[in-house]
Amino acid sequence: MALRESDRGQAPRKGLKEKVLTLDTMNPCVRRVEYAVRGPILLRALELEQELRQGVKKPFTEIIHVNTGDAQAMGQKPITFLRQVLALCVHPALLSSPDFPEDAKRRAERILQVCGGHSIGAYSISSGIQMIREDVALYIERRDGGIPADPNNIFLSTGASDAIVTVLKLLVSGHGCTRTGVLIPIPQYPLYSAALAELDAVQVDYYLDEEHAWALDVSELRRALRQARDHCHPRALCVINPGNPTGQVQTRECIEAIIRFAFEEGLFLMADEVYQDNVYAEGSQFHSFKKVLMEMGPPFAAQQELASFHSVSKGYMGECGFRGGYVEVVNMDPEVQRQMQKLLTVQLCPPVPGQALVDMVVSPPAPSDPSFAQFHAERQEVLGQLAAKARLTEQIINSTPGLRCNPVQGAMYSFPRIELPPRAVQHAQELGLAPDMFFCLCLLEETGICVVPGSGFGQREGTYHFRMTILPPIEKLRLMLEKLSHFHAKFTSEYS
Amino acid sequence: MALRESDRGQAPRKGLKEKVLTLDTMNPCVRRVEYAVRGPILLRALELEQELRQGVKKPFTEIIHVNTGDAQAMGQKPITFLRQVLALCVHPALLSSPDFPEDAKRRAERILQVCGGHSIGAYSISSGIQMIREDVALYIERRDGGIPADPNNIFLSTGASDAIVTVLKLLVSGHGCTRTGVLIPIPQYPLYSAALAELDAVQVDYYLDEEHAWALDVSELRRALRQARDHCHPRALCVINPGNPTGQVQTRECIEAIIRFAFEEGLFLMADEVYQDNVYAEGSQFHSFKKVLMEMGPPFAAQQELASFHSVSKGYMGECGFRGGYVEVVNMDPEVQRQMQKLLTVQLCPPVPGQALVDMVVSPPAPSDPSFAQFHAERQEVLGQLAAKARLTEQIINSTPGLRCNPVQGAMYSFPRIELPPRAVQHAQELGLAPDMFFCLCLLEETGICVVPGSGFGQREGTYHFRMTILPPIEKLRLMLEKLSHFHAKFTSEYS
Repeated sequence: MALRESDRGQAPRKGLKEKVLTLDTMNPCVRRVEYAVRGPILLRALELEQELRQGVKKPFTEIIHVNTGDAQAMGQKPITFLRQVLALCVHPALLSSPDFPEDAKRRAERILQVCGGHSIGAYSISSGIQMIREDVALYIERRDGGIPADPNNIFLSTGASDAIVTVLKLLVSGHGCTRTGVLIPIPQYPLYSAALAELDAVQVDYYLDEEHAWALDVSELRRALRQARDHCHPRALCVINPGNPTGQVQTRECIEAIIRFAFEEGLFLMADEVYQDNVYAEGSQFHSFKKVLMEMGPPFAAQQELASFHSVSKGYMGECGFRGGYVEVVNMDPEVQRQMQKLLTVQLCPPVPGQALVDMVVSPPAPSDPSFAQFHAERQEVLGQLAAKARLTEQIINSTPGLRCNPVQGAMYSFPRIELPPRAVQHAQELGLAPDMFFCLCLLEETGICVVPGSGFGQREGTYHFRMTILPPIEKLRLMLEKLSHFHAKFTSEYS
Repeated sequence: MALRESDRGQAPRKGLKEKVLTLDTMNPCVRRVEYAVRGPILLRALELEQELRQGVKKPFTEIIHVNTGDAQAMGQKPITFLRQVLALCVHPALLSSPDFPEDAKRRAERILQVCGGHSIGAYSISSGIQMIREDVALYIERRDGGIPADPNNIFLSTGASDAIVTVLKLLVSGHGCTRTGVLIPIPQYPLYSAALAELDAVQVDYYLDEEHAWALDVSELRRALRQARDHCHPRALCVINPGNPTGQVQTRECIEAIIRFAFEEGLFLMADEVYQDNVYAEGSQFHSFKKVLMEMGPPFAAQQELASFHSVSKGYMGECGFRGGYVEVVNMDPEVQRQMQKLLTVQLCPPVPGQALVDMVVSPPAPSDPSFAQFHAERQEVLGQLAAKARLTEQIINSTPGLRCNPVQGAMYSFPRIELPPRAVQHAQELGLAPDMFFCLCLLEETGICVVPGSGFGQREGTYHFRMTILPPIEKLRLMLEKLSHFHAKFTSEYS
């Protein structure tokens, strides 16, 4: 009937009212997606900033954004060499300017040489510029004490997130009890839960051990896996090291145990190593999964499938806005790798300026280069400040009654546990809010401090946390932490 | 049993041989994805380039890449103003340099003002920088004769492809006969078929009319829709105008008819308008779907759901490598729009340099600005050359026996029809190749000309085509077209 009507060119009634696309008719997987780092708290913070601009009186004069790992937004200065080279790539007329060091010019010319039409405005091949992937391979070999890396196993990406989703896409299959399950840490970085929801895969939680500096215990992996096998087909294990939001750095022994477990259980390993340059704690050291895997020798080294992710958004450079990153795949089935290559072609290529930044990050100035001294000083300044801020954060949080955090061994976050009075918990539940969401909203309204509730990352039932970055300038961070501890005391007495 | 083994830390046999991820166990939707523009022909072209570099003798000295719309790779010069502003944003120390015009500096300062920490290296909000979305809205209002545009309906993206996939994601739902169907033109730009395969939606083909300059006929839409309703739930209609790969520009009447059809049939409209600046033919003019929809008045203007896509990769700027673009949504359900906003947060933000380019493209220098004269001259030079190359291509193709093409009214492609001798068709089939794939491979091997077979875009059964860009410098294009017609003559006699 509807067809006949439309044949006569009349509008069937449905055309007149209903939308084609509504909450009821849209993709249900997309509806299930949640991403707390940019959720209700951030939206409210943006509203408050708007009100402040309009001159509305608040108990604070500015919003302190410690909700997201956005270093330059918090005042961290870009590394001069990176920006010089990029400016030369963007506007090659500057190559004749005396204001740029020779090595920056050589580097820019080297990059432009391998761009289509010698322009950074041309597409690259979909896996990223060949020369840059070769430079990434050399970086990985240096990092891993000479263990070889193959440029053909490296794919440049639009930030690490893009590469992580690409690998997850390859892994997803099945329906009902055969649906792909993916083990992720709790607390986790919510990209993982969001991507798994969108891809209709099963999120399998394993809990990090808060009592032992957020260590990863293989017996907990085994528990999670055994339970998951009742209702899905677990096929991959995600590990974030250094940890986000937890800031722990895994020991070599722990990584070996994880690899052995993945091998025994037939799990594809995904190692999120975007914070590999962010290690601060005495005695902590970054060990790449690739290196540990290769050093374990056969049968592991030759067979265990691994994808390792890196990014230009973190580390000492913090170039989030350029969306540069890469993934190295190890022991991936060649046919599957061809499928991955094919899948990447559809989106044409990662942003070429981000690819150029990847190149500079994996092959920074050498001691003999004119730019080395300044580059080295700027890099050490950033990393030194981050180390000091990691210590300061731990110190002030742990001297505050009702707040407790583990040492920030690496990355750029603390994930403190908060004691909330029963009346506050009850009040939050009456408002239909997670108790830590309620705490974070009150904190924001009263102090302008914007943090993310632990419920957005996952936490053990009945425990409450929030994630904060350690990125503000150290004096500002100190004031913020003091404000935070005063607020917690006030909040606690208010609800006791 | 497997569990007990792993409890004892032994490796179940499967761990020793099989990969977790194989062609059989990977995501079957990803396996179905095809993207001809970067398919086997391009891979072979890259091999040939490698061989040429190694000094291997070939009947040609270089590969002529007319397979992809990558203007700067074919020698088109970037627009100076765009690169000046971008260089200033990347390396603000240049703001004190005398070598940059004042308006470029003002523009860079205006952009940096609204970046986190005044740095282009900070994340933006996920829908893109507010000020830039406001500038996009003003551009759309000017383009559409004053019809209002709302910045809150505009989402910046990583090239247009990213935004197209995002909107398709929202639309996908159902299983079996209730699966979402999406109408796409044949021939199409293969992003659509690739995305629909990956999202497990149903591709519903409607054929453009080659005999009438690739016009879109609503009775053909109706035929496609009626047939599709037997096996899926058609919910969206994609239109590419100006056309890729077909180069046609739709008339206002045609667009009105499409809108009326979508409205009657309850279809969400997706208008791929990335070539809106690329219109060359006498009497052809770009009409945006938004403008036509709004001018049609009620009930259409107030109800028909529409998403319109644009990009900085095409037009006169051709800044493909920066991956900048946007989508404007019209009459979208506010709840769904919030869901779209949420979905975008997971990938954090589009590349900020690409966002900056979008800003310059939507608000170029005004006649009173110091940069105007040069900007205007450069822009007209590019568009004038493209118009000349469009005419030249049509002329030479249509003077070649066995080749025939429609006028290139817009975009940057010709999609000529090729007559292939029955013996060539038979030979191709013996090789397991589509006949036009066989033709294009022979063309590549003998002349170095890299085009994409029509089978990669879709075509009527028994017809054969290829897509070529009109992007090489005009003299090079002329030589290439002559080589092509000689080759076709030779190929034809060889197989007759």
